[in-house]
Amino acid sequence: MKEIKVIRNEQPKSKPDGDRLGFGKYFTDHMLVMDYSADQGWHEPMIVPYGPITLDPSAMVFHYGQEVFEGMKAYKTADGHVCLFRPDANMHRLNQSSERISIPEVDEELLLDGIIALVREDQDWIPDGAESSLYIRPFIIATEPGLGVRAAREYKLMVILSPSGSYYPEGIHPVSIFVENQYVRAVRGGTGTAKTAGNYASGIRAQEVAQKQGYSQVLWLDGVEKKYIEEVGSMNVFFKISGEIVTPELSGSILAGITRDSVIRLLQSWGHQVTERKISVEELFAASSAGTLEEAFGTGTAAVISPIGKMKWDSEEITISGGHTGEISKKLYDTITGIQKGVLEDPFGWRRVIL
Amino acid sequence: MKEIKVIRNEQPKSKPDGDRLGFGKYFTDHMLVMDYSADQGWHEPMIVPYGPITLDPSAMVFHYGQEVFEGMKAYKTADGHVCLFRPDANMHRLNQSSERISIPEVDEELLLDGIIALVREDQDWIPDGAESSLYIRPFIIATEPGLGVRAAREYKLMVILSPSGSYYPEGIHPVSIFVENQYVRAVRGGTGTAKTAGNYASGIRAQEVAQKQGYSQVLWLDGVEKKYIEEVGSMNVFFKISGEIVTPELSGSILAGITRDSVIRLLQSWGHQVTERKISVEELFAASSAGTLEEAFGTGTAAVISPIGKMKWDSEEITISGGHTGEISKKLYDTITGIQKGVLEDPFGWRRVIL
Repeated sequence: MKEIKVIRNEQPKSKPDGDRLGFGKYFTDHMLVMDYSADQGWHEPMIVPYGPITLDPSAMVFHYGQEVFEGMKAYKTADGHVCLFRPDANMHRLNQSSERISIPEVDEELLLDGIIALVREDQDWIPDGAESSLYIRPFIIATEPGLGVRAAREYKLMVILSPSGSYYPEGIHPVSIFVENQYVRAVRGGTGTAKTAGNYASGIRAQEVAQKQGYSQVLWLDGVEKKYIEEVGSMNVFFKISGEIVTPELSGSILAGITRDSVIRLLQSWGHQVTERKISVEELFAASSAGTLEEAFGTGTAAVISPIGKMKWDSEEITISGGHTGEISKKLYDTITGIQKGVLEDPFGWRRVIL
Repeated sequence: MKEIKVIRNEQPKSKPDGDRLGFGKYFTDHMLVMDYSADQGWHEPMIVPYGPITLDPSAMVFHYGQEVFEGMKAYKTADGHVCLFRPDANMHRLNQSSERISIPEVDEELLLDGIIALVREDQDWIPDGAESSLYIRPFIIATEPGLGVRAAREYKLMVILSPSGSYYPEGIHPVSIFVENQYVRAVRGGTGTAKTAGNYASGIRAQEVAQKQGYSQVLWLDGVEKKYIEEVGSMNVFFKISGEIVTPELSGSILAGITRDSVIRLLQSWGHQVTERKISVEELFAASSAGTLEEAFGTGTAAVISPIGKMKWDSEEITISGGHTGEISKKLYDTITGIQKGVLEDPFGWRRVIL
């Protein structure tokens, strides 16, 4: 592992109350920074005190959105270690996102070394609570000043850490979702497969509309026919129909979630049939009428598993699993968080102990 | 007009050589800033020395791309005045973009007053060259720190000015364009009608592919059928086929260009028939074979009119107007720049004299 230069924060902050962490509201004492220039490539990764960054108002990220990011977590295990969950997959996806947005790729191993060094530096910030964790946000922004529309020649990579509470302070429970007919998240050939700022900007409006109607998330349909299911909020989505588990295929507009992949592999290891295919919203509602829609849940780093209890499409609303958390959802949640927290075996080698 | 507070720059920069301005590379001595908070709304517009801005690394713009912008120009007229071109339209479009991206709307009149005050402050920066101008870039970014995905509660609006040279240093000349079959700029229900960062991030990759093959711009097809023409690069596009002028209709994924609108109104005032409708790339190539594709040109603030001389689709390449600037393109360019520069009558009241 390469030695990474550290400039220690001489004025550490006081830590927030563990009960009030929420998500992404507090940040630790340090951050990892690394700059890119056309001459030097990515150079000089460094751990420095967490603090504001200074950019020219013409920095390209403010105008043309050249940005990619990742989301991952560090967990305290029952026996006092600290683990990451499939961090190689996040490093790899960061580079895949960068490729789409014309951002120069980073050395995945070097970046992961830097992230591990950063988490070790700020290990006192990893919360103790049963389902809390240290959220890790690597991101890259185009910093070159100038208004020409083209790929920048200067970038800044940063990794910031945020102690985050349980996604479900009162235990895992189902959400209600709203099938979005007007707004579209992404279309094949667009940026839907990349973790990039613009995809999220695009979704905020629809999220607000759904919330105004009392639903907590949006179910996105495909941009071409507005017929097939893509994602829910910023999660991938799974359904259990007549005993079979189905999830939208990675058609070119869906983010290849790491939790999605973990869920598929776990389910298969339990003997379930998992099919990646097109799923129309019509099929879902028909299955609900026929009594064969047994479960629905979202998957993502933040919530891990987010059971879906209600779904609204046009004027019709259906209830799934009687509005409760389904059996598969619960088992997946317990298993993945159990692996992450080191209380269960790790048959796939997903856990990476870093401390 | 409301008085806007000015903090004057005591260390003005030396001005760049007028021959080397290019586009968006140099910035003037001042900028307009205005902040938004949930409590105070948009407040305290101020002209301050141009300089870097400082943001928390978790500022939402860096993660979820909540950003909108505009592009407009100030021109020196032949008789020594300074004009803007249809600035009300830009103010209005900024708010329309903001609505899509869930950014709070600004007072259009107040913002325009601020822009006028800023241009007056930095009037010495407006270049003299026949076809040069002062490019004006208003933009809004989400500055609230935090990683929750939702509309921010804090924003910063800035207006920066960049003296820019002629888009055609050697006179207006045609570009070659590449019909993009793989990447998609926008789809109906997405953000294509808004001037927002993510749309541009999405286009950079395709632009690079086109340039590697020797073409200077991308012709975007619709995201649904990959059949109908949408925009060229970041411009709207027009064709003359058998004497009729056609342009893609504003279908929900195309930016409603202000130059596009000016072109339609000018052409109509000259007695041309202008039709806004779906135009397939197949139709264009068939018209070219039949000898009825008479002209093609892009329209936008930067280039005003950008004639298209060559177009490549799959393995087929066509030449338009013999590879020269067509008659209509030239007349539109001369007329619009003539109105902007005050050497022609302004029958539509597009020019706004500000100095």
